[in-house]
Amino acid sequence: MSFTEVGIVMGSDSDLPVMGGAGEALDRFGVCYRMTIASAHRHPEKVARYARDAAADGLKVIIAGAGGAAHLPGVIASLTTLPVIGVPISTPHLGGLDSLYAIVQMPRGVPVATVSINGAFNAALLAVQILALENRTLREQLSCYRRELAAQVEERDRCLQRGCRDGEGPPWG
Amino acid sequence: MSFTEVGIVMGSDSDLPVMGGAGEALDRFGVCYRMTIASAHRHPEKVARYARDAAADGLKVIIAGAGGAAHLPGVIASLTTLPVIGVPISTPHLGGLDSLYAIVQMPRGVPVATVSINGAFNAALLAVQILALENRTLREQLSCYRRELAAQVEERDRCLQRGCRDGEGPPWG
Amino acid sequence: MSFTEVGIVMGSDSDLPVMGGAGEALDRFGVCYRMTIASAHRHPEKVARYARDAAADGLKVIIAGAGGAAHLPGVIASLTTLPVIGVPISTPHLGGLDSLYAIVQMPRGVPVATVSINGAFNAALLAVQILALENRTLREQLSCYRRELAAQVEERDRCLQRGCRDGEGPPWG
Amino acid sequence: MSFTEVGIVMGSDSDLPVMGGAGEALDRFGVCYRMTIASAHRHPEKVARYARDAAADGLKVIIAGAGGAAHLPGVIASLTTLPVIGVPISTPHLGGLDSLYAIVQMPRGVPVATVSINGAFNAALLAVQILALENRTLREQLSCYRRELAAQVEERDRCLQRGCRDGEGPPWG
Amino acid sequence: MSFTEVGIVMGSDSDLPVMGGAGEALDRFGVCYRMTIASAHRHPEKVARYARDAAADGLKVIIAGAGGAAHLPGVIASLTTLPVIGVPISTPHLGGLDSLYAIVQMPRGVPVATVSINGAFNAALLAVQILALENRTLREQLSCYRRELAAQVEERDRCLQRGCRDGEGPPWG
Amino acid sequence: MSFTEVGIVMGSDSDLPVMGGAGEALDRFGVCYRMTIASAHRHPEKVARYARDAAADGLKVIIAGAGGAAHLPGVIASLTTLPVIGVPISTPHLGGLDSLYAIVQMPRGVPVATVSINGAFNAALLAVQILALENRTLREQLSCYRRELAAQVEERDRCLQRGCRDGEGPPWG
Amino acid sequence: MSFTEVGIVMGSDSDLPVMGGAGEALDRFGVCYRMTIASAHRHPEKVARYARDAAADGLKVIIAGAGGAAHLPGVIASLTTLPVIGVPISTPHLGGLDSLYAIVQMPRGVPVATVSINGAFNAALLAVQILALENRTLREQLSCYRRELAAQVEERDRCLQRGCRDGEGPPWG
Amino acid sequence: MSFTEVGIVMGSDSDLPVMGGAGEALDRFGVCYRMTIASAHRHPEKVARYARDAAADGLKVIIAGAGGAAHLPGVIASLTTLPVIGVPISTPHLGGLDSLYAIVQMPRGVPVATVSINGAFNAALLAVQILALENRTLREQLSCYRRELAAQVEERDRCLQRGCRDGEGPPWG
Repeated sequence: MSFTEVGIVMGSDSDLPVMGGAGEALDRFGVCYRMTIASAHRHPEKVARYARDAAADGLKVIIAGAGGAAHLPGVIASLTTLPVIGVPISTPHLGGLDSLYAIVQMPRGVPVATVSINGAFNAALLAVQILALENRTLREQLSCYRRELAAQVEERDRCLQRGCRDGEGPPWG
Repeated sequence: MSFTEVGIVMGSDSDLPVMGGAGEALDRFGVCYRMTIASAHRHPEKVARYARDAAADGLKVIIAGAGGAAHLPGVIASLTTLPVIGVPISTPHLGGLDSLYAIVQMPRGVPVATVSINGAFNAALLAVQILALENRTLREQLSCYRRELAAQVEERDRCLQRGCRDGEGPPWG
Repeated sequence: MSFTEVGIVMGSDSDLPVMGGAGEALDRFGVCYRMTIASAHRHPEKVARYARDAAADGLKVIIAGAGGAAHLPGVIASLTTLPVIGVPISTPHLGGLDSLYAIVQMPRGVPVATVSINGAFNAALLAVQILALENRTLREQLSCYRRELAAQVEERDRCLQRGCRDGEGPPWG
Repeated sequence: MSFTEVGIVMGSDSDLPVMGGAGEALDRFGVCYRMTIASAHRHPEKVARYARDAAADGLKVIIAGAGGAAHLPGVIASLTTLPVIGVPISTPHLGGLDSLYAIVQMPRGVPVATVSINGAFNAALLAVQILALENRTLREQLSCYRRELAAQVEERDRCLQRGCRDGEGPPWG
Repeated sequence: MSFTEVGIVMGSDSDLPVMGGAGEALDRFGVCYRMTIASAHRHPEKVARYARDAAADGLKVIIAGAGGAAHLPGVIASLTTLPVIGVPISTPHLGGLDSLYAIVQMPRGVPVATVSINGAFNAALLAVQILALENRTLREQLSCYRRELAAQVEERDRCLQRGCRDGEGPPWG
Repeated sequence: MSFTEVGIVMGSDSDLPVMGGAGEALDRFGVCYRMTIASAHRHPEKVARYARDAAADGLKVIIAGAGGAAHLPGVIASLTTLPVIGVPISTPHLGGLDSLYAIVQMPRGVPVATVSINGAFNAALLAVQILALENRTLREQLSCYRRELAAQVEERDRCLQRGCRDGEGPPWG
Repeated sequence: MSFTEVGIVMGSDSDLPVMGGAGEALDRFGVCYRMTIASAHRHPEKVARYARDAAADGLKVIIAGAGGAAHLPGVIASLTTLPVIGVPISTPHLGGLDSLYAIVQMPRGVPVATVSINGAFNAALLAVQILALENRTLREQLSCYRRELAAQVEERDRCLQRGCRDGEGPPWG
Repeated sequence: MSFTEVGIVMGSDSDLPVMGGAGEALDRFGVCYRMTIASAHRHPEKVARYARDAAADGLKVIIAGAGGAAHLPGVIASLTTLPVIGVPISTPHLGGLDSLYAIVQMPRGVPVATVSINGAFNAALLAVQILALENRTLREQLSCYRRELAAQVEERDRCLQRGCRDGEGPPWG
């Protein structure tokens, strides 16, 4: 019996390979989400409706990904007071620096929480960190996740050390 | 008996020192315009109303200036099919490159005609060039303006040459 | 019985894969155009002739694409008062930022309406939006086009939702 | 009877002119906060202690500002699972682009919610938006704040219009 | 009895503070030059005439300075086969990077010899180095100039050393 | 009976695919040249010898290509008063912007004539333009070359027009 | 009977293809090293332990590679006074400029010796140059290495010259 | 009875306001140094002599500062195997990014240890960290210095806290 707490929005299904990373992260934490395609430029009415209804629909955090003149996160943020997390999507010619500028440089009054270029996975982690403020289970899962990250580092380091101890050539040889 | 044909929009009166340049250019050509403050992020409803009513209000071209995550021109362009000219306004830390990217890199389907950073004067000239397509007087004024530009160049060159001929030191001495 | 209203110019046939997008968009709206190869640097006389004759030849809007030290749009704009739309073409080492700067940063007096890097399709849409000011059919086509864009967004969103409802894995899985 | 819910951290008191903006915003919403000077590079132990104790100290959100090789937000984020909001502080030579990159480009697993360069005020608004998820009063204050922003836009627009109607020269004259 | 061998061109007298540096360098070497104001965008006919007549007028090298969408050097280079030296002039918002790209990134077939941003003095030195290929006096002057540069370095170094030896505080104290 | 007038230098044979373009251009104009590998950083003595002997060896122009912290052109320019043309070679991570900056931003007193990134062909054309100042045959060849460039443009334009007239789809279809 | 004098640290085994270059260089000079995987963000405790124990463990120089918001070198440098050499690792979207800024722009008090993007080989050479200050053998090896670099340049140059003398086409033909 | 162990080199006395920071840091640690003016471009012979004699003169580390096409550190590094620390000096138009690229992007074989833009103080600290490898006193001084840095942070934090506790307005009010 869980509710959709996170909305993931993007302007086009061509953004799915990137934005799917957010779904992957939320799945891992068992957080319910809904993915929506709604372009700020090609379907502004849908975006406006989405943003205005978001709180009433039970959403708590919105993750919006966009590339180029990436207005989607900011447009949504201007129509809701829910936290909006922006994912700058990489672009073929400027590498996503255009997307990053268009998302992070929001004017005084309407913030967007920006993550790294193509950082949809991290956007979802940030959403979980926000939801965890009032959810002990998520807090524990997050601690567990961090311990796993550390354990992975240890494991890979051990593997690197063993590789050398075994007399095998170094892994990059 | 003239009608307002050009709308000049900006997000804040702090943009007036730049955007005023557009008014200056339109004044010169006797083109009627209306200046409006309407922020894409702080007052999205007003922007939406403005853009949706623009054609019915008799506007033919919209000039929109914005800085940073500069969404105003693109948001307006998504809500009208009138030509929208975007003026990237310079920003203190990134020089206006953020504004330029956020305005010019619009996605397929919704163009914004972008001019130079702080190029409000040129934005207005572009609007006049568009209006002149169906207005012989403006066409003649534009030709006249171009002749004046050339004449100024000649005048300044003559002045430079004279300066040297007179035996005065060169003007940069 | 239609007239050529839009000129599409580029410096080399190597620009055709990009600039062809402008023809594609104009075809869609039934706007007549003529494509011309005329390099500002390798054949300046042809460019000058082209620009000076453009209005008399019945052109109303010129779309010029160029890369690197991209002078073509500005050179044409200096020789006609027709609206000139510049398309910065991507370059192998600087991604087209060089082209963008060389097109958008025009000096006071001679604007170029700049679109996104490789944005030839949008350049043509902008030309259509300009022509539509005096052409009801184009205005209706533009409204129709915008509705199609919105409908596509809806369709792709529905498809995304169905995909999930059907129990299939998410599309990025 | 209120508790400190937001921590504001910076590496040096030279960051106070920027980071004070976060305090200003939190004051406005009546959110309790504590400002701390703790440099990731000059006093890493203090930063580690701060980050590890943050949750136990009752903090819910941490706002960290830093410039140049701006590690403070990321270092804190690696030691707590509370949401960390990073403020890239402008730098004299690279304008803060160095700070922005060093904060926003966090690796998979440890996000930092990044706001605009020198955007401490917005960082605090984002913190309020997060706290408001479980606080109706803050939600109402946020709605109220947004209405005020819109009202200010209206007021300034009215003032601009009046200025013209009164026959006074335009404000930029 | 000397002839004008170097032409210095710029688009506006506002470029004189920078371009005057070229005159200063040529004066020093006793090379005759003529300064001309001729804007590629505001007076293209004058520029075309200038470039086409340059060789017949006895010019051997042309130094052209321009800022922003800096087309002047490239436009001249496309109309003469004399060597053209381009000086990117600094711009208020992009620092002259726009000027640099618009000058240096010329397409295959039409080179511009580009110097540093605001490097008009060096542009003139380069012109002298070119003229010196067939002028023994200039070659000797150039060798002499280089020796002076080295001597200045020695002098300043000696001065720095003395400063310390004298027990005075270091010069930056 | 011709003499080597142009030296082409590069730091490594990995630069040959780019710098070979200079040889190609000089071959076309029948200008004798000598290619040399001499790294400013890995073999500074050879570079110093090369630069100091260049004039005595009969060289008139030196073309130097380098990438990254591209010091070769500037180091040579500091040791000869012959004109030095610098070719910034593209780099895998920064696209050659590092090379461009390291070559073009020379200090007052020691200019390098910089061409576009990977612009070795244009560097050679520039060398020919310099040599042509005292060589009528080269001047005529350059005029001829420019006419060929223009003729190519015409030919490609005709081909484009024919393609359309023939009822074949447009070339990008 | 040699001791581990150089530590090579990286955040992930995905950095091995780059950081392996450091091992390659150290192998060549017979300098003992230990490679470690220890992420500043995913396992800060391990990094802290590593840095604090480095001197006691006999390390003299630490080479740390990282990409994106590349904190590893700076975090280590804040916890030891051993010299820390930072290797900015290239990133897919910003080319490694983000990594470079995040490593090189360290605040007053805590330097990181930064080398070129992906310059792990050079990082190791720098470490050898530091160790060589107290090790005559390494000094001789370094001189020998430099002579080899010069010899390679000579060899490649000879090869290039022979290629041409043999009447074979030039190597780039 | 101490020896000059660190050389500080710069191309011009205009670099003294920046490079003086290195002297300040070395003074603090009682490390002897000698400052020298020697321009890679205006006096290459002096630079070559300086670099070749450095080791024999007893220098152990060289700190070289340069701006623009900043070749000085790399040129010195190519002529000695002593560790060379490069300080990119800020430039008026590109902020020092040109200097940074020209120093840090050294080719394989010849590293320069690069610090932040204008980071002469940190360059000297790095030199001290290198010298400290064989000097217990310096090691202790460095530990002491780090403790002072931390103490300063504590002091400023206490001051900030007191300021608030005293009922005075916050320091940024």
